[in-house]
Amino acid sequence: MKNKKETIAIDMDGVIADVEAQLIAWYHRDHGILISREDMIGKPEPDAFPNKEVIFEYLQTPGFFRTLPVMPGAIEVVQELMKDYDVYIVTAAMEFPLSLYEKYQWLQEHFPFISWKNIIMCGDKSVIDTDYLIDDHIKNLDFCKGRPIMFNAGHNSNIDHHQRVNTWGEVRTLFNDIRNLSKSEAV
Amino acid sequence: MKNKKETIAIDMDGVIADVEAQLIAWYHRDHGILISREDMIGKPEPDAFPNKEVIFEYLQTPGFFRTLPVMPGAIEVVQELMKDYDVYIVTAAMEFPLSLYEKYQWLQEHFPFISWKNIIMCGDKSVIDTDYLIDDHIKNLDFCKGRPIMFNAGHNSNIDHHQRVNTWGEVRTLFNDIRNLSKSEAV
Repeated sequence: MKNKKETIAIDMDGVIADVEAQLIAWYHRDHGILISREDMIGKPEPDAFPNKEVIFEYLQTPGFFRTLPVMPGAIEVVQELMKDYDVYIVTAAMEFPLSLYEKYQWLQEHFPFISWKNIIMCGDKSVIDTDYLIDDHIKNLDFCKGRPIMFNAGHNSNIDHHQRVNTWGEVRTLFNDIRNLSKSEAV
Repeated sequence: MKNKKETIAIDMDGVIADVEAQLIAWYHRDHGILISREDMIGKPEPDAFPNKEVIFEYLQTPGFFRTLPVMPGAIEVVQELMKDYDVYIVTAAMEFPLSLYEKYQWLQEHFPFISWKNIIMCGDKSVIDTDYLIDDHIKNLDFCKGRPIMFNAGHNSNIDHHQRVNTWGEVRTLFNDIRNLSKSEAV
Protein backbone atom coordinates (compact mmCIF):
# COMPACT_ATOMS: atom_id res chain seq x y z
CA MET A 1 0.00 0.00 0.00
CA LYS A 2 1.22 3.46 -0.86
CA ASN A 3 0.70 6.10 1.80
CA LYS A 4 0.29 8.91 -0.65
CA LYS A 5 -2.77 9.05 -2.88
CA GLU A 6 -2.26 9.24 -6.60
CA THR A 7 -3.12 12.59 -8.14
CA ILE A 8 -5.58 13.45 -10.91
CA ALA A 9 -5.65 16.82 -12.69
CA ILE A 10 -9.05 17.60 -14.18
CA ASP A 11 -9.58 20.35 -16.72
CA MET A 12 -12.61 22.67 -16.43
CA ASP A 13 -13.76 23.87 -19.85
CA GLY A 14 -15.11 21.00 -21.92
CA VAL A 15 -14.61 18.49 -19.09
CA ILE A 16 -16.53 19.52 -15.98
CA ALA A 17 -18.02 22.68 -17.57
CA ASP A 18 -19.98 22.31 -20.80
CA VAL A 19 -18.60 25.06 -23.04
CA GLU A 20 -20.12 23.59 -26.22
CA ALA A 21 -23.63 23.73 -24.70
CA GLN A 22 -23.17 27.38 -23.68
CA LEU A 23 -21.81 28.41 -27.11
CA ILE A 24 -24.72 26.68 -28.86
CA ALA A 25 -27.27 28.28 -26.52
CA TRP A 26 -25.86 31.80 -26.73
CA TYR A 27 -25.44 31.66 -30.51
CA HIS A 28 -29.03 30.50 -30.90
CA ARG A 29 -30.25 33.22 -28.53
CA ASP A 30 -28.38 36.01 -30.36
CA HIS A 31 -28.49 34.83 -33.99
CA GLY A 32 -31.42 32.42 -34.23
CA ILE A 33 -29.23 29.69 -35.69
CA LEU A 34 -29.08 26.35 -33.89
CA ILE A 35 -25.72 24.65 -34.32
CA SER A 36 -25.68 20.98 -33.33
CA ARG A 37 -23.01 18.99 -31.51
CA GLU A 38 -22.59 17.11 -34.79
CA ASP A 39 -21.79 20.39 -36.55
CA MET A 40 -18.90 20.82 -34.10
CA ILE A 41 -17.20 17.52 -34.91
CA GLY A 42 -13.64 17.77 -36.14
CA LYS A 43 -13.15 21.53 -35.85
CA PRO A 44 -11.93 24.08 -33.35
CA GLU A 45 -15.04 25.39 -31.56
CA PRO A 46 -15.23 28.82 -33.28
CA ASP A 47 -15.06 27.22 -36.74
CA ALA A 48 -18.35 25.42 -36.18
CA PHE A 49 -20.27 28.70 -36.16
CA PRO A 50 -21.14 30.90 -39.18
CA ASN A 51 -19.53 33.93 -37.50
CA LYS A 52 -16.54 32.83 -35.48
CA GLU A 53 -15.77 36.35 -34.22
CA VAL A 54 -18.90 36.11 -32.11
CA ILE A 55 -17.45 33.08 -30.33
CA PHE A 56 -14.25 34.95 -29.43
CA GLU A 57 -16.42 37.77 -28.07
CA TYR A 58 -18.44 35.34 -25.94
CA LEU A 59 -15.24 34.04 -24.35
CA GLN A 60 -14.45 37.60 -23.24
CA THR A 61 -18.00 38.40 -22.08
CA PRO A 62 -18.54 38.79 -18.33
CA GLY A 63 -20.78 35.98 -17.13
CA PHE A 64 -19.86 33.46 -19.82
CA PHE A 65 -17.68 31.28 -17.61
CA ARG A 66 -19.72 32.00 -14.47
CA THR A 67 -22.88 30.47 -15.99
CA LEU A 68 -21.51 27.42 -17.83
CA PRO A 69 -23.65 24.31 -17.37
CA VAL A 70 -22.05 21.50 -15.39
CA MET A 71 -21.12 18.48 -17.51
CA PRO A 72 -23.58 15.67 -16.71
CA GLY A 73 -22.30 13.34 -14.01
CA ALA A 74 -19.18 15.38 -13.27
CA ILE A 75 -20.10 16.34 -9.69
CA GLU A 76 -20.90 12.79 -8.58
CA VAL A 77 -17.91 11.14 -10.23
CA VAL A 78 -15.41 13.77 -9.03
CA GLN A 79 -16.70 13.23 -5.49
CA GLU A 80 -16.21 9.47 -5.87
CA LEU A 81 -12.68 9.91 -7.23
CA MET A 82 -11.76 12.14 -4.29
CA LYS A 83 -12.16 9.16 -1.95
CA ASP A 84 -9.15 7.45 -3.50
CA TYR A 85 -7.24 10.22 -5.29
CA ASP A 86 -6.00 13.74 -4.70
CA VAL A 87 -8.00 15.65 -7.29
CA TYR A 88 -6.82 18.99 -8.70
CA ILE A 89 -8.84 21.24 -10.96
CA VAL A 90 -6.38 22.63 -13.50
CA THR A 91 -7.73 25.24 -15.88
CA ALA A 92 -6.06 27.40 -18.51
CA ALA A 93 -7.79 30.49 -17.15
CA MET A 94 -4.88 32.84 -17.80
CA GLU A 95 -5.85 33.12 -21.49
CA PHE A 96 -9.05 34.89 -20.37
CA PRO A 97 -7.94 36.74 -17.22
CA LEU A 98 -11.36 38.26 -16.61
CA SER A 99 -12.60 34.70 -16.12
CA LEU A 100 -10.30 34.04 -13.15
CA TYR A 101 -12.72 35.03 -10.42
CA GLU A 102 -15.74 33.71 -12.34
CA LYS A 103 -14.14 30.31 -12.53
CA TYR A 104 -13.40 30.39 -8.83
CA GLN A 105 -17.05 31.32 -8.09
CA TRP A 106 -18.32 28.62 -10.44
CA LEU A 107 -16.26 26.01 -8.61
CA GLN A 108 -17.50 27.31 -5.25
CA GLU A 109 -21.09 26.93 -6.46
CA HIS A 110 -20.90 23.53 -8.14
CA PHE A 111 -17.86 21.84 -6.56
CA PRO A 112 -17.73 23.36 -3.05
CA PHE A 113 -16.11 20.16 -1.76
CA ILE A 114 -12.92 20.98 -3.69
CA SER A 115 -10.52 22.96 -1.51
CA TRP A 116 -8.94 26.18 -2.80
CA LYS A 117 -5.65 24.34 -2.24
CA ASN A 118 -6.56 22.00 -5.13
CA ILE A 119 -7.42 24.66 -7.71
CA ILE A 120 -4.80 25.67 -10.28
CA MET A 121 -5.36 28.40 -12.84
CA CYS A 122 -2.59 28.50 -15.37
CA GLY A 123 -1.61 29.08 -18.96
CA ASP A 124 0.54 26.26 -20.20
CA LYS A 125 -0.03 23.04 -18.21
CA SER A 126 3.36 21.51 -18.99
CA VAL A 127 4.80 22.02 -15.49
CA ILE A 128 1.81 20.37 -13.80
CA ASP A 129 2.87 16.95 -12.58
CA THR A 130 0.00 14.63 -11.64
CA ASP A 131 -0.43 10.89 -12.18
CA TYR A 132 -3.41 11.45 -14.50
CA LEU A 133 -4.73 14.32 -16.60
CA ILE A 134 -8.33 14.39 -17.83
CA ASP A 135 -8.51 17.07 -20.51
CA ASP A 136 -10.11 17.70 -23.89
CA HIS A 137 -7.15 19.45 -25.54
CA ILE A 138 -4.28 17.54 -27.07
CA LYS A 139 -2.02 20.58 -26.55
CA ASN A 140 -2.25 19.67 -22.86
CA LEU A 141 -2.51 15.88 -23.14
CA ASP A 142 0.45 15.50 -25.51
CA PHE A 143 2.89 17.04 -23.04
CA CYS A 144 1.53 15.98 -19.68
CA LYS A 145 3.80 14.17 -17.28
CA GLY A 146 1.21 11.61 -16.17
CA ARG A 147 -1.26 9.37 -17.99
CA PRO A 148 -3.39 11.35 -20.43
CA ILE A 149 -7.15 10.71 -20.64
CA MET A 150 -8.96 12.58 -23.40
CA PHE A 151 -12.48 13.77 -22.60
CA ASN A 152 -14.56 13.72 -25.76
CA ALA A 153 -15.30 17.01 -27.51
CA GLY A 154 -16.23 17.95 -31.04
CA HIS A 155 -12.82 19.51 -31.63
CA ASN A 156 -10.94 16.33 -30.62
CA SER A 157 -13.19 13.78 -32.28
CA ASN A 158 -10.70 13.02 -35.04
CA ILE A 159 -7.76 12.51 -32.64
CA ASP A 160 -6.97 8.90 -31.87
CA HIS A 161 -3.65 8.80 -30.02
CA HIS A 162 -5.08 9.20 -26.49
CA GLN A 163 -7.47 7.07 -24.51
CA ARG A 164 -10.93 8.62 -24.99
CA VAL A 165 -13.72 8.90 -22.44
CA ASN A 166 -17.07 10.10 -23.76
CA THR A 167 -18.90 10.75 -20.52
CA TRP A 168 -18.31 11.01 -16.78
CA GLY A 169 -19.85 7.54 -16.53
CA GLU A 170 -16.95 6.30 -18.63
CA VAL A 171 -14.49 8.12 -16.36
CA ARG A 172 -16.02 6.25 -13.41
CA THR A 173 -15.68 2.92 -15.21
CA LEU A 174 -12.10 3.62 -16.27
CA PHE A 175 -10.96 4.45 -12.74
CA ASN A 176 -12.82 1.44 -11.35
CA ASP A 177 -10.78 -0.66 -13.78
CA ILE A 178 -7.57 1.13 -12.80
CA ARG A 179 -8.22 0.52 -9.11
CA ASN A 180 -9.16 -3.12 -9.65
CA LEU A 181 -6.02 -3.69 -11.70
CA SER A 182 -3.93 -1.99 -9.03
CA LYS A 183 -5.49 -4.23 -6.34
CA SER A 184 -4.96 -7.42 -8.34
CA GLU A 185 -1.32 -6.45 -8.97
CA ALA A 186 -0.86 -5.83 -5.25
CA VAL A 187 -2.07 -9.37 -4.37
CA MET B 1 23.66 20.75 -24.92
CA LYS B 2 20.10 20.15 -23.85
CA ASN B 3 17.43 21.34 -26.25
CA LYS B 4 14.93 22.13 -23.55
CA LYS B 5 15.59 24.97 -21.15
CA GLU B 6 15.50 24.26 -17.44
CA THR B 7 12.48 25.67 -15.63
CA ILE B 8 12.32 28.06 -12.68
CA ALA B 9 9.15 28.68 -10.67
CA ILE B 10 9.18 32.06 -8.93
CA ASP B 11 6.75 32.96 -6.16
CA MET B 12 5.10 36.41 -6.13
CA ASP B 13 4.36 37.55 -2.57
CA GLY B 14 7.56 38.11 -0.63
CA VAL B 15 9.74 37.31 -3.65
CA ILE B 16 8.96 39.63 -6.57
CA ALA B 17 6.28 41.62 -4.68
CA ASP B 18 7.23 43.23 -1.38
CA VAL B 19 4.39 42.28 0.96
CA GLU B 20 6.31 43.24 4.11
CA ALA B 21 6.82 46.80 2.82
CA GLN B 22 3.10 47.17 2.03
CA LEU B 23 2.01 45.82 5.44
CA ILE B 24 4.41 48.17 7.23
CA ALA B 25 3.25 51.17 5.18
CA TRP B 26 -0.47 50.48 5.53
CA TYR B 27 -0.22 49.78 9.26
CA HIS B 28 1.69 53.00 9.78
CA ARG B 29 -0.84 54.95 7.69
CA ASP B 30 -3.84 53.57 9.58
CA HIS B 31 -2.48 53.17 13.13
CA GLY B 32 0.48 55.51 13.38
CA ILE B 33 2.79 52.71 14.50
CA LEU B 34 5.91 52.00 12.48
CA ILE B 35 6.90 48.33 12.57
CA SER B 36 10.41 47.64 11.33
CA ARG B 37 11.72 44.75 9.24
CA GLU B 38 13.64 43.74 12.35
CA ASP B 39 10.36 43.47 14.29
CA MET B 40 9.19 40.92 11.69
CA ILE B 41 12.10 38.52 12.18
CA GLY B 42 11.19 35.01 13.21
CA LYS B 43 7.39 35.33 13.17
CA PRO B 44 4.51 34.85 10.77
CA GLU B 45 3.78 38.28 9.26
CA PRO B 46 0.57 39.05 11.22
CA ASP B 47 2.28 38.29 14.56
CA ALA B 48 4.71 41.16 14.06
CA PHE B 49 1.91 43.74 14.39
CA PRO B 50 0.11 44.82 17.59
CA ASN B 51 -3.28 43.99 16.04
CA LYS B 52 -2.93 40.99 13.77
CA GLU B 53 -6.60 41.06 12.73
CA VAL B 54 -5.83 44.22 10.78
CA ILE B 55 -3.29 42.29 8.71
CA PHE B 56 -5.83 39.62 7.75
CA GLU B 57 -8.21 42.40 6.73
CA TYR B 58 -5.53 44.03 4.56
CA LEU B 59 -5.01 40.75 2.69
CA GLN B 60 -8.72 40.79 1.79
CA THR B 61 -8.80 44.50 0.90
CA PRO B 62 -9.29 45.38 -2.78
CA GLY B 63 -6.14 47.08 -4.05
CA PHE B 64 -3.73 45.46 -1.58
CA PHE B 65 -2.18 43.05 -4.07
CA ARG B 66 -2.64 45.42 -7.02
CA THR B 67 -0.39 48.07 -5.43
CA LEU B 68 2.39 45.96 -3.90
CA PRO B 69 5.85 47.46 -4.45
CA VAL B 70 8.16 45.47 -6.71
CA MET B 71 11.02 43.78 -4.85
CA PRO B 72 14.25 45.67 -5.71
CA GLY B 73 16.10 44.12 -8.63
CA ALA B 74 13.40 41.56 -9.41
CA ILE B 75 12.47 42.90 -12.85
CA GLU B 76 16.03 43.04 -14.16
CA VAL B 77 17.12 39.67 -12.81
CA VAL B 78 13.96 37.85 -13.96
CA GLN B 79 14.56 39.24 -17.45
CA GLU B 80 18.13 37.97 -17.36
CA LEU B 81 17.05 34.52 -16.17
CA MET B 82 14.52 34.28 -19.00
CA LYS B 83 17.38 34.23 -21.52
CA ASP B 84 18.50 30.83 -20.28
CA TYR B 85 15.51 29.42 -18.40
CA ASP B 86 11.77 28.96 -18.81
CA VAL B 87 10.48 31.13 -15.99
CA TYR B 88 7.05 30.55 -14.43
CA ILE B 89 5.40 32.83 -11.90
CA VAL B 90 3.66 30.54 -9.41
CA THR B 91 1.55 32.21 -6.77
CA ALA B 92 -0.77 30.84 -4.11
CA ALA B 93 -3.51 33.27 -5.14
CA MET B 94 -6.37 30.86 -4.50
CA GLU B 95 -6.23 31.61 -0.76
CA PHE B 96 -7.36 35.17 -1.58
CA PRO B 97 -9.58 34.70 -4.63
CA LEU B 98 -10.37 38.39 -4.93
CA SER B 99 -6.66 38.89 -5.61
CA LEU B 100 -6.67 36.72 -8.73
CA TYR B 101 -7.28 39.48 -11.25
CA GLU B 102 -5.27 42.03 -9.25
CA LYS B 103 -2.26 39.76 -9.39
CA TYR B 104 -2.71 39.33 -13.13
CA GLN B 105 -2.91 43.11 -13.59
CA TRP B 106 0.13 43.63 -11.36
CA LEU B 107 2.16 41.22 -13.49
CA GLN B 108 0.95 42.93 -16.66
CA GLU B 109 2.15 46.27 -15.27
CA HIS B 110 5.53 45.28 -13.85
CA PHE B 111 6.45 42.07 -15.73
CA PRO B 112 4.73 42.50 -19.12
CA PHE B 113 7.45 40.35 -20.71
CA ILE B 114 6.09 37.27 -18.91
CA SER B 115 3.53 35.49 -21.09
CA TRP B 116 0.13 34.52 -19.68
CA LYS B 117 1.22 30.98 -20.54
CA ASN B 118 3.84 31.18 -17.79
CA ILE B 119 1.58 32.38 -14.97
CA ILE B 120 0.18 29.85 -12.51
CA MET B 121 -2.22 30.78 -9.73
CA CYS B 122 -2.74 27.91 -7.36
CA GLY B 123 -3.32 26.82 -3.81
CA ASP B 124 -0.94 24.05 -2.89
CA LYS B 125 2.22 24.08 -5.05
CA SER B 126 3.05 20.40 -4.59
CA VAL B 127 2.04 19.36 -8.11
CA ILE B 128 4.19 22.04 -9.75
CA ASP B 129 7.24 20.40 -11.26
CA THR B 130 10.05 22.78 -12.18
CA ASP B 131 13.82 22.42 -11.89
CA TYR B 132 14.03 25.28 -9.36
CA LEU B 133 11.61 27.00 -7.00
CA ILE B 134 12.38 30.44 -5.56
CA ASP B 135 9.93 30.97 -2.69
CA ASP B 136 9.84 32.42 0.81
CA HIS B 137 7.61 29.77 2.40
CA ILE B 138 8.96 26.46 3.64
CA LYS B 139 5.49 24.93 3.20
CA ASN B 140 6.23 25.24 -0.54
CA LEU B 141 9.99 24.68 -0.50
CA ASP B 142 9.87 21.55 1.67
CA PHE B 143 7.72 19.66 -0.83
CA CYS B 144 8.86 21.02 -4.16
CA LYS B 145 10.03 18.59 -6.83
CA GLY B 146 13.01 20.66 -7.95
CA ARG B 147 15.81 22.50 -6.16
CA PRO B 148 14.45 24.81 -3.46
CA ILE B 149 15.86 28.33 -3.09
CA MET B 150 14.59 30.30 -0.10
CA PHE B 151 14.11 34.01 -0.60
CA ASN B 152 14.78 35.82 2.66
CA ALA B 153 11.80 37.10 4.65
CA GLY B 154 11.27 37.93 8.29
CA HIS B 155 9.08 34.88 8.80
CA ASN B 156 11.73 32.45 7.46
CA SER B 157 14.79 34.03 9.07
CA ASN B 158 15.15 31.23 11.63
CA ILE B 159 14.91 28.45 9.04
CA ASP B 160 18.22 26.98 7.96
CA HIS B 161 17.52 23.85 5.93
CA HIS B 162 17.23 25.58 2.53
CA GLN B 163 19.70 27.63 0.53
CA ARG B 164 18.94 31.28 1.33
CA VAL B 165 19.11 34.25 -1.03
CA ASN B 166 18.71 37.67 0.55
CA THR B 167 18.27 39.82 -2.53
CA TRP B 168 17.70 39.56 -6.26
CA GLY B 169 21.39 40.38 -6.65
CA GLU B 170 22.12 37.13 -4.82
CA VAL B 171 19.70 35.27 -7.10
CA ARG B 172 21.68 36.59 -10.08
CA THR B 173 24.96 35.45 -8.54
CA LEU B 174 23.58 32.01 -7.64
CA PHE B 175 22.33 31.33 -11.17
CA ASN B 176 25.59 32.63 -12.66
CA ASP B 177 27.35 30.04 -10.49
CA ILE B 178 24.88 27.33 -11.54
CA ARG B 179 25.41 28.11 -15.23
CA ASN B 180 29.18 28.24 -14.89
CA LEU B 181 29.19 24.92 -13.06
CA SER B 182 26.96 23.43 -15.73
CA LYS B 183 29.31 24.69 -18.48
CA SER B 184 32.42 23.38 -16.75
CA GLU B 185 30.77 19.96 -16.29
CA ALA B 186 29.86 19.91 -19.97
CA VAL B 187 33.50 20.42 -21.01
